Amino acid sequence: LYQKDYDIIVVGAGVLGAASAHYLKKNNPSKEILIVDMYSGVAQGNTGRSNAMFRNTFSSLDNQILSESAINFYLDLESSGSNLGIRKTGYLWLLSEKEQRKFERHIERMIASGIETKKYDRQILQLSLPTLQTNVKNSEEASLMGLEDIDAGFFGAKCGQIDPVALTSYYAKEFERMGGKIAFNTFVESLLASPYDPLEVDGEPFVWQESGISGVRVMRGISRDLGAKTTVLAAGAWTNTLLEPLGIDGHIKAKKRQLFKIQASSEQLKKLLKNDNFNALKTLPFLILPETGCFVKAIPESNEFWLGCDDDLNQPFVNAPSRNLEDYSADLSYFENNVYRILGEYLPEFRETKPSKMWAGLYSYNTLDNMPFVFADRGAIVVGGDSGSGIMKGDSLGRIVDAVYRDGEDAEAELYGGLKYRCSKIGFAQRSVEHEEWVI
Amino acid sequence: LYQKDYDIIVVGAGVLGAASAHYLKKNNPSKEILIVDMYSGVAQGNTGRSNAMFRNTFSSLDNQILSESAINFYLDLESSGSNLGIRKTGYLWLLSEKEQRKFERHIERMIASGIETKKYDRQILQLSLPTLQTNVKNSEEASLMGLEDIDAGFFGAKCGQIDPVALTSYYAKEFERMGGKIAFNTFVESLLASPYDPLEVDGEPFVWQESGISGVRVMRGISRDLGAKTTVLAAGAWTNTLLEPLGIDGHIKAKKRQLFKIQASSEQLKKLLKNDNFNALKTLPFLILPETGCFVKAIPESNEFWLGCDDDLNQPFVNAPSRNLEDYSADLSYFENNVYRILGEYLPEFRETKPSKMWAGLYSYNTLDNMPFVFADRGAIVVGGDSGSGIMKGDSLGRIVDAVYRDGEDAEAELYGGLKYRCSKIGFAQRSVEHEEWVI
Repeated sequence: LYQKDYDIIVVGAGVLGAASAHYLKKNNPSKEILIVDMYSGVAQGNTGRSNAMFRNTFSSLDNQILSESAINFYLDLESSGSNLGIRKTGYLWLLSEKEQRKFERHIERMIASGIETKKYDRQILQLSLPTLQTNVKNSEEASLMGLEDIDAGFFGAKCGQIDPVALTSYYAKEFERMGGKIAFNTFVESLLASPYDPLEVDGEPFVWQESGISGVRVMRGISRDLGAKTTVLAAGAWTNTLLEPLGIDGHIKAKKRQLFKIQASSEQLKKLLKNDNFNALKTLPFLILPETGCFVKAIPESNEFWLGCDDDLNQPFVNAPSRNLEDYSADLSYFENNVYRILGEYLPEFRETKPSKMWAGLYSYNTLDNMPFVFADRGAIVVGGDSGSGIMKGDSLGRIVDAVYRDGEDAEAELYGGLKYRCSKIGFAQRSVEHEEWVI
Repeated sequence: LYQKDYDIIVVGAGVLGAASAHYLKKNNPSKEILIVDMYSGVAQGNTGRSNAMFRNTFSSLDNQILSESAINFYLDLESSGSNLGIRKTGYLWLLSEKEQRKFERHIERMIASGIETKKYDRQILQLSLPTLQTNVKNSEEASLMGLEDIDAGFFGAKCGQIDPVALTSYYAKEFERMGGKIAFNTFVESLLASPYDPLEVDGEPFVWQESGISGVRVMRGISRDLGAKTTVLAAGAWTNTLLEPLGIDGHIKAKKRQLFKIQASSEQLKKLLKNDNFNALKTLPFLILPETGCFVKAIPESNEFWLGCDDDLNQPFVNAPSRNLEDYSADLSYFENNVYRILGEYLPEFRETKPSKMWAGLYSYNTLDNMPFVFADRGAIVVGGDSGSGIMKGDSLGRIVDAVYRDGEDAEAELYGGLKYRCSKIGFAQRSVEHEEWVI
């Protein structure tokens, strides 16, 4: 595994790395391709720690396309017998009057794009979610906190949960079945930079040489250099750590995100897990509370909820993240001061609850426009910046990486369903996407 | 100086901070404005360590406008008696055939913009710079190095040198004359983030609070919090260090750049300093060698040259730069392996030379488009990303900061000479600039 040159080395066995490797091998079967990952299996980094929700409800047309195609692929795969743990619960945005106005044109555009949506006025919403406190301004506490009343609901139907390990494993297994190789427990210390025309002199590459990325230096017990004609970087939060020593911008900012698991121990919480009004599964949809980005994921199978929140200000970016993601722990005080206080006002069932488990992972934000990217630079193809939505766009991004490999950033990728997508739109040299406004 | 709230605190007394503070005070005379800087005087960070060249020859129209206006201001200031140490030497790009083709449309556009330029064919160039080796491919060494022959020269006339300390001092003194205050030797430990509606509870700001930047925590002996309604960040390489703890992207990448001083000890080097063919000063213009970004700055007054090079690959980005810029030293081996080897081929006078002094500083690149930015975000205005050309655009950027302060990113700034410039063009929310191709 370690002793030779490869056509392609893919760094990272998360969902983006596995999907990329899969399509690269599928469409370039004669190429020798290796995935390297520092963990012991697929999706053991931030893919596996994520909330693993999927949705096609985005404000930007590009995100609509990328997610819709990928979700269709996942749904069809599940229908044809693969178990990806998909649960089509839907997403329910609970909107303040202000948000409703702000998002109106995005909602209209989603409808125009044919995205399956439904609007709930306050009265119907109240009937559909009886314990929801829409009128929180009545509460002294909520009023002091500046919380907004809920004025409407916006429902996305082709949205839900997926098992991130099952999905990533699907790609990895198909990749291996086609002859691709995976080296686990293999830490990438650095990218190799070499002159295209080496002189075999110490200190290369020099300024006057044309140079590029020529593989990776990996560590498993000892350091080894693995050569690759093309290095695909799907390293998520570690993208900058690998690219910045070469003076190449990784274009991501890593930020800790926390998840808190609440056991549905009370009768009220058990009741909240189930709901006949939104989806065929008769479960509570994924709820997003107004303004604060607080959310509730119901998992009736295990009788639990996952809660979290989108931090706006004050959660630091993490440069050079640790390899050990346990270093990024969830804070009980964050739950108590933020998630819990907000949630308790809108859904009183959550008062007096305490997390039975909590953990954290790292989002890879592309702060420029909250849109993912695939860019090619001197022997490397970099995919990332998915800003928390890598799973739901993974299939599309994997296909784009393969298209860029074959034809460069000007390539047209064929997404699932046959839609052609011009890859340069999500590159940087000719980037042409709108800022995504619907980030949770 | 430390005991009160300010209307505006400007972080950084480099050229961008001083120019910003100057225009803020000039146009908002009743506002109390403080500049804080960690060094003992103005321009003691990367402004003072820079090559301090100015030019109006850029590929992007926005850079043309920003630099042209600022340079006109500097030239008029010098004409009216201020000594800014301006020497209008011109810039001479020595272009390979490939570069000539690549830059053709940029050059045409500069001419269309009325930028004073001149083209030299190889023969005239050779006559004007007799010791220049245009035909380096004859040399075995240069051929091995892959160096390109020089096929043409492109001269920018309204370009030259300026004294960065004198320029920054001008702005700082005017600022103080109008009543502005400067606190030197004052290190900004962090930006303060506060809820707009504080509850005076531990742990604020919480997720459910609307919050913003409310000043700075400074250290001079002890830590003190200084409140400000608006905080202007002109912190150059330290922009991310201050913004990232709040989860705000500073949009810069800092990279070490090195300068090497060569004493003109030989007769040939002394002769090279002088040249009748390019400017009224009868000195060698600022030379830029083909492909590699190697450059030569002649300073006949002190009988010396400054040499340097633009690193493409392999010079790391520096996250969280040290306060002590002496930590970023120039490497003799970098000179010997890169600058010296290239230069020696094109200008043999430099063979056998050794730097008598060398130093380094940090560029603040905006890797997105190599264009500067001014953006407003929750109580802060951030200026930077000048990618090595902050001095030559400083006056324009200072005026833009003031316009954004008064009217937000949608403001129109009036640049020197009366041209109106829509500030949002160099913000991020509605950024609308071309990628700058002429970066040295």
